[in-house]
Amino acid sequence: MPIITLITDFGTADGYVGAMKGVILSVAPQATVLDVAHDLPAQDVEAGAWCLASCWRYFPKGTLHVVVVDPGVGSDRQAIIAEVDGQYLIGPDNGVFTHALQRATEREVRRIPADFHLPDSLSFTFHGRDIFAYAAGMIASGKRTWKEITEPAADFLLLAVSQPEYGDTSIQGRILHVDRYGNLITNIEGHKLPGEAQWTMRIGGADLSVRDIARTYSDVDQGRPVALIGSSGFLEIAICGGSAYRVFQTDPGTQISMKRLLRD
Amino acid sequence: MPIITLITDFGTADGYVGAMKGVILSVAPQATVLDVAHDLPAQDVEAGAWCLASCWRYFPKGTLHVVVVDPGVGSDRQAIIAEVDGQYLIGPDNGVFTHALQRATEREVRRIPADFHLPDSLSFTFHGRDIFAYAAGMIASGKRTWKEITEPAADFLLLAVSQPEYGDTSIQGRILHVDRYGNLITNIEGHKLPGEAQWTMRIGGADLSVRDIARTYSDVDQGRPVALIGSSGFLEIAICGGSAYRVFQTDPGTQISMKRLLRD
Amino acid sequence: MPIITLITDFGTADGYVGAMKGVILSVAPQATVLDVAHDLPAQDVEAGAWCLASCWRYFPKGTLHVVVVDPGVGSDRQAIIAEVDGQYLIGPDNGVFTHALQRATEREVRRIPADFHLPDSLSFTFHGRDIFAYAAGMIASGKRTWKEITEPAADFLLLAVSQPEYGDTSIQGRILHVDRYGNLITNIEGHKLPGEAQWTMRIGGADLSVRDIARTYSDVDQGRPVALIGSSGFLEIAICGGSAYRVFQTDPGTQISMKRLLRD
Repeated sequence: MPIITLITDFGTADGYVGAMKGVILSVAPQATVLDVAHDLPAQDVEAGAWCLASCWRYFPKGTLHVVVVDPGVGSDRQAIIAEVDGQYLIGPDNGVFTHALQRATEREVRRIPADFHLPDSLSFTFHGRDIFAYAAGMIASGKRTWKEITEPAADFLLLAVSQPEYGDTSIQGRILHVDRYGNLITNIEGHKLPGEAQWTMRIGGADLSVRDIARTYSDVDQGRPVALIGSSGFLEIAICGGSAYRVFQTDPGTQISMKRLLRD
Repeated sequence: MPIITLITDFGTADGYVGAMKGVILSVAPQATVLDVAHDLPAQDVEAGAWCLASCWRYFPKGTLHVVVVDPGVGSDRQAIIAEVDGQYLIGPDNGVFTHALQRATEREVRRIPADFHLPDSLSFTFHGRDIFAYAAGMIASGKRTWKEITEPAADFLLLAVSQPEYGDTSIQGRILHVDRYGNLITNIEGHKLPGEAQWTMRIGGADLSVRDIARTYSDVDQGRPVALIGSSGFLEIAICGGSAYRVFQTDPGTQISMKRLLRD
Repeated sequence: MPIITLITDFGTADGYVGAMKGVILSVAPQATVLDVAHDLPAQDVEAGAWCLASCWRYFPKGTLHVVVVDPGVGSDRQAIIAEVDGQYLIGPDNGVFTHALQRATEREVRRIPADFHLPDSLSFTFHGRDIFAYAAGMIASGKRTWKEITEPAADFLLLAVSQPEYGDTSIQGRILHVDRYGNLITNIEGHKLPGEAQWTMRIGGADLSVRDIARTYSDVDQGRPVALIGSSGFLEIAICGGSAYRVFQTDPGTQISMKRLLRD
């Protein structure tokens, strides 16, 4: 039986996540239901997109990821299912799948028709339970294939993700995400950086006083800033034993500039 | 093997939930243990009752729900197991099962005898682990039926839940729960509202400036109040893209008045 | 298939826990993965050690506990696996296993070699995913035994845990942990206390006005302090229906003194 993961901004105290799990297991009693996150900032689609991006690749083929951060629930936004490299994404068409869709080698996006709905539901307000969890349960149970419960989508939404500018001697990027430790994760891809280079770096106008790309957080002394390739493969700014977020006062979107130091 | 869900106010950092899971799986290794909520406000029995109410119906028959919000742990309050429409509720007799018991078609409530306890336990303070998780594991394992580990209960507690007054042209209700989004969930049942009516509504003395019962949150413009039938079937007051709780400053218990608008 | 439990300070919103679950289930699809805690205070090794201590004993033999509170990730601290009474602890060698190692009847600690790593990983910063979850998955899958993926460890770290002084008429101890309810859990072991004794107690200089060791929280009136043997077997100071932490303003490390009252 496939794995079904859940990413929401529901918290858990209201019982909304519980209702989703109940629907899934009523339709697909053998499914493995896994919590990924329910503590996303309310209505923060970018946070949902990042959370999914940082974990989906590690799951086995056939996994179904239900992602419900859905400020437009009940509007005419589409409900979609995407196949990405053999895994499945189920949720609202509001950009929450952006990173996963952009990094997948193969992808196909289809829409859930408007009449697909948990039978006998009490309201039209809870698509997480009545559409997305129900769809995941139906597919996991083998009662329907993902194509049988979807139809072709004319288009779908992607968040506007700022792309770095990679020059010969300089790189311009932006902070994509700040994690729980205050690490600043940029959109600069680690594999695009030359191996041995040294840099001057500025972040939101402040000098970073970092020259080398380190291997890990502990390569510098406690309290010192460090630049390294983080766990998702992006350049990340951290403070060893501290919070770069607190030191640099930077939010997602802040610019980071790197200039390469050249030998005379 | 049946599903066992857990609803507590324990948080998870103290390891109390971990100990419950360990006890369950030691007794019933094949059980499916699911978290519903552990972040309920400490000692808030009404919050526990609401959380259970909003999800239990969606689980398959045979599911065991362990609910531990238990300010009276160790007092002479009973420990109970209830069968409600083929599912089971396990926890303290303090009203935390009120909504589920009231809405079940068939129910039977029995008590766990005082000598039922995890063997060799270190204390008398943790009924979540030593009585309720242990009871759930015993039933899930098939080692005992729920009747074998219980005895008839002379009575049991229900929270005093305010009932709405449904008049021909007016309805008086109260706010039952405020969810994570600041949606105000009332005790007014959606199926009691006439289909096409228009209303004036006041909540805690403030005019709601809402006339229609909408279908979903997005039926009004961003920042506007909306009244709709929420996911549990009750009338709910929300702000599209915002928090009705912040706008109306209302807590559970606040009164809501609806007067029907009649054609001349 | 064995159970794998997860204890981290990662929160869940960043997707780090999700990535760990994905790695485990990719290697060991039949494993049962259980959350114990992800909301530990960031980098708080003592909190991780306590969380594990309060639950591991309740799991069945063969359970694998992955504990990642790891301020020294990437430094030259060892990665270790310990067998404790038939269960397994996997994580950094920074003392996070202290209580479990000290209380186990049989224990063996080995180290994970530096070249053990999830293949094709993007970084060297996330041992929770790339080393600890991967090791748990390998063992759970049966592809490797725990000894095959480890080598002898020359030594390992234990936190300095203050030991109580048990005298004939007095006991000196310290607060070990403050739980979510504000209960003050001391390092004084319940089974070392004489059965019928009465005491005067002082905590951080304040008189406790408690003479008897109670059986449970409800043995005193609401708002009154109570001393009892808590769920992990240690003496615990609580306020019935309130928070001892708020009343006594005490943090872990604070001293508690008990003097026995003797009959004339």
